[in-house]
Amino acid sequence: MAMDFSAMCPRYEWAVELLSKRWTSLILRALMDGPRRFTEVRDYVPGLSDRLLSERLQELEAAGVVERRVYPQRPVVIEYDLTEKGRDLRGVLEAIQAWANRWVEVEETPHAVGFP
Amino acid sequence: MAMDFSAMCPRYEWAVELLSKRWTSLILRALMDGPRRFTEVRDYVPGLSDRLLSERLQELEAAGVVERRVYPQRPVVIEYDLTEKGRDLRGVLEAIQAWANRWVEVEETPHAVGFP
Repeated sequence: MAMDFSAMCPRYEWAVELLSKRWTSLILRALMDGPRRFTEVRDYVPGLSDRLLSERLQELEAAGVVERRVYPQRPVVIEYDLTEKGRDLRGVLEAIQAWANRWVEVEETPHAVGFP
Repeated sequence: MAMDFSAMCPRYEWAVELLSKRWTSLILRALMDGPRRFTEVRDYVPGLSDRLLSERLQELEAAGVVERRVYPQRPVVIEYDLTEKGRDLRGVLEAIQAWANRWVEVEETPHAVGFP
């Protein structure tokens, strides 16, 4: 049963706007298999700065996709985890990975098609 | 059988960089059910300018996802269609739509979570 894409859908637009922010789909991948600390997410995503990671995590929290957990020990431990809404994005990430496995050559870099 | 997201994958990074460019996932949706002319794509995607549509279509052509077809009649007719690689993105779009149907409230606008 194919979905109907004959017209735009505001829900789709909203989802795409969330997922298309630079780094977001990479950060979500970092969290897909369980909670991580800030530095663990940063180290998982090549090239991601502290400033942008912090910005994106705040946006994902505001969108109800990521949860920030503070463990009040010494030193304080802060973890980021997906909410149920966030974990449910697994299907999207798997679809992207499946397509990439079929179509993306490892030699193919973003630069080759004119990305910054 | 869950996919392994324990480490980053260059193919995934490349796919995400392609799909995350502003407007791209909306333009792909416009083409998912068959070829359209330039103005038809523009009218399908709210807020998309001629200049940015043209840029995005060129990128998608370079990435082998979209094909530009010129029918040399008078006036010349130009259509944009997905290639096999592009049509195979249907699974990604369907996963986004399915998630959006489950989690995105129509009242929820991108502005509400701090998007530009």
